[in-house]
Amino acid sequence: MLTPYEIIKKKRDGGELTREEIFFIIDSFTKGEIPDYQMAAFLMAVYFRKLNDLETALLTQAMQASGKSMDLSSVPGPTVDKHSTGGVGDKVSLPLAPLVAACGGFVPMMSGRGLGHTGGTLDKLESIPGFRVNLSNGEFVSAVREVGCAIIGQTADVAPADKKLYALRDVTATVDSMDLIAASILSKKLAAGPKSLLLDVKTGSGAFMRELDDSRALARLMVAICRNSDRNARALITNMDQPLGEAAGNANEVEESLSVLRGEGPEDLTTLVVESGARMLEMAGLVKNLDQGRARIRNAITSGAGLDRFRKMLERQGGDPRVVDDPTLLPQAAHRWEETADRSGTLLSIDTTAAGMAVVVLGGGRQKSTDDVDHAVGVRFLKKPGDAVEKGEPVFLIDYNDEERLADCRARLEKAIVIGDGEPRRLPLILEEID
Amino acid sequence: MLTPYEIIKKKRDGGELTREEIFFIIDSFTKGEIPDYQMAAFLMAVYFRKLNDLETALLTQAMQASGKSMDLSSVPGPTVDKHSTGGVGDKVSLPLAPLVAACGGFVPMMSGRGLGHTGGTLDKLESIPGFRVNLSNGEFVSAVREVGCAIIGQTADVAPADKKLYALRDVTATVDSMDLIAASILSKKLAAGPKSLLLDVKTGSGAFMRELDDSRALARLMVAICRNSDRNARALITNMDQPLGEAAGNANEVEESLSVLRGEGPEDLTTLVVESGARMLEMAGLVKNLDQGRARIRNAITSGAGLDRFRKMLERQGGDPRVVDDPTLLPQAAHRWEETADRSGTLLSIDTTAAGMAVVVLGGGRQKSTDDVDHAVGVRFLKKPGDAVEKGEPVFLIDYNDEERLADCRARLEKAIVIGDGEPRRLPLILEEID
Repeated sequence: MLTPYEIIKKKRDGGELTREEIFFIIDSFTKGEIPDYQMAAFLMAVYFRKLNDLETALLTQAMQASGKSMDLSSVPGPTVDKHSTGGVGDKVSLPLAPLVAACGGFVPMMSGRGLGHTGGTLDKLESIPGFRVNLSNGEFVSAVREVGCAIIGQTADVAPADKKLYALRDVTATVDSMDLIAASILSKKLAAGPKSLLLDVKTGSGAFMRELDDSRALARLMVAICRNSDRNARALITNMDQPLGEAAGNANEVEESLSVLRGEGPEDLTTLVVESGARMLEMAGLVKNLDQGRARIRNAITSGAGLDRFRKMLERQGGDPRVVDDPTLLPQAAHRWEETADRSGTLLSIDTTAAGMAVVVLGGGRQKSTDDVDHAVGVRFLKKPGDAVEKGEPVFLIDYNDEERLADCRARLEKAIVIGDGEPRRLPLILEEID
Repeated sequence: MLTPYEIIKKKRDGGELTREEIFFIIDSFTKGEIPDYQMAAFLMAVYFRKLNDLETALLTQAMQASGKSMDLSSVPGPTVDKHSTGGVGDKVSLPLAPLVAACGGFVPMMSGRGLGHTGGTLDKLESIPGFRVNLSNGEFVSAVREVGCAIIGQTADVAPADKKLYALRDVTATVDSMDLIAASILSKKLAAGPKSLLLDVKTGSGAFMRELDDSRALARLMVAICRNSDRNARALITNMDQPLGEAAGNANEVEESLSVLRGEGPEDLTTLVVESGARMLEMAGLVKNLDQGRARIRNAITSGAGLDRFRKMLERQGGDPRVVDDPTLLPQAAHRWEETADRSGTLLSIDTTAAGMAVVVLGGGRQKSTDDVDHAVGVRFLKKPGDAVEKGEPVFLIDYNDEERLADCRARLEKAIVIGDGEPRRLPLILEEID
């Protein structure tokens, strides 16, 4: 008979846990049969001894199996999703899901809210009047089947083990374990049911993993988990050393997403959408190679098919579809502040975590989980590292509703940005690909 | 303000905890203000990151401070105690405490019960009809003051943090941490109040630390804890590769202790008593050097002063003092079995843990903490490693009350002992001294 004590001790001593042991400890913990103190000791042992790829995949599967998974068998085509580890201005999911759907993929996307300095897809979508992120499992599956994509929050019955584990990790200093992070993310992504998953692992000053080595390790691990769980997976390691696109906030990110769908988006954001979409189509078997994939996605932009699919998604999820043609229907801030350069030179760097926090304090994110988000406020980054800046030239625009918050936001942005002489560090948009 | 989260994280990341942090976490845990799950994570972090000497001393002091300590200020002379890490046949405390008392030392000894394969001083003393190990704090202090020595169990108000921590360690696989072991032992020993402490750290097949390196590390650590806690301390690393003396059990160990006090004890046991006593007298400042100390202890044997002090200790603690002159008043087993050698040769080794378990299954120890001990049963080891053995010659005597238990005991002893040709490994009685 398995005992929690022996499983803790085995991991403490560096042993490899079996499928049976991992499912036992997660299942018993979810049911309340293993006390928190034993699980806390287990988690700390995992923190030190780590899990190998197979153990991490089994942990992910056990956490997924603790709740319900979506049954996508009624969906008449290949299912494919994307997950980003998060950053500032990362609104890729908003144009990407409808573009892939317009190309024949089915995108069952379960997303999250803003966390720390990063924005959240759900918060952005909720700036669209009426948009519902809390579909039932049945509504979600039928939306994916009939629209081709849906973006919702985690439903209550998905991966309850993850919720319980996360709460315990949060108070026992066992959050920052890469294995536990990967298992937590993927237990929910796998429960949403896609056959293929593209992982966008951010790196740089605005990413949770700032160093390329760490980002690469997380990307490799997540790809391994997916494959050990019978999913296609591929990872891109992408630049979060600066905001993605120009807009960071909520309504302004929806607006920028619409500009991508109209073929008028910022180049970095549009490129990442096209490159991500091409890989999703290839994994889904809808194109023979990446060049075909890129062409299909670009075509769905040019033809307006992506924009049309976005409109259908809004209709299906209760959002006001008129925002597609008239973004002024999105929440608008009362005031705009134009921040100008106090010297001429080159923009050398943006501390992107600090820039994200500047948006949070403006009201665009949450400092506590109970805070309300002001969807109307946000920052537009007019200059990126490497750009020449003239003294007096605008560097950002800040849409705000509150003078005190503006002052805090400005102070943070001023510190976050370095203008000077010399050469900036410039990461390519896509640093590496793991497949 | 200190938070448990930050203390867990600091230790997880290899930081050195301050006095304030250690006292905070132990004090809050004892009061129930820190939940078990945070303490479990902390203990596992300690298991991996370890504590340095000062942190371990502070932990020991915090655990001691969680309860009451004996006030020995009324004792009219130097206080000195001895602690052994335990083994088979280790009855040193029984003759040692009265001998040191007879030489002018005051010995406030708080002892334990048998654990695993090892015997316990309290169990041995309880084979003396009427002997009480549960004195109140006041009775204990006055017994030490007036008799010169007392041997009791841990009182309820000593180191409650240790009891609570041990229960948690027991179910979270955090028992076998040398730092936590040392702090647990010494929190209780220091609470008993002696100014000087001799540590007898066993090594070999019957010790908890079988390897000399581990025994040495534990000895060094315990000496460091005592010194960081303002006590004199010294450690001996001694041989537990074979039972100490001949007798292992309870009543038979009391009888052998009396033989030491009469100057008729086995040589190894007598030597360890003399060497231990000499060091205790030296630490207590009662003699100028070890040779003087040895002479004083031997003189207390020859003069009968030690035996007399033992009798006084029995009288004070409710034991029948007549056993001193008539050991047949101790519990006697119904039967004796004489185990003979099935071949001639040299006794090469005794697996002393297995030999200890053979005494436990006979009824001389506990397999579960709720088991009763049969004080009358025991084993007498007639041969030691290096001794020549003739086929048919007796190797042990087994005093028993139950045929089934005898069979189990014999089977274990047969496996534990190797008779053959060649040279045995023979450890010296005292391997090293740390002072």
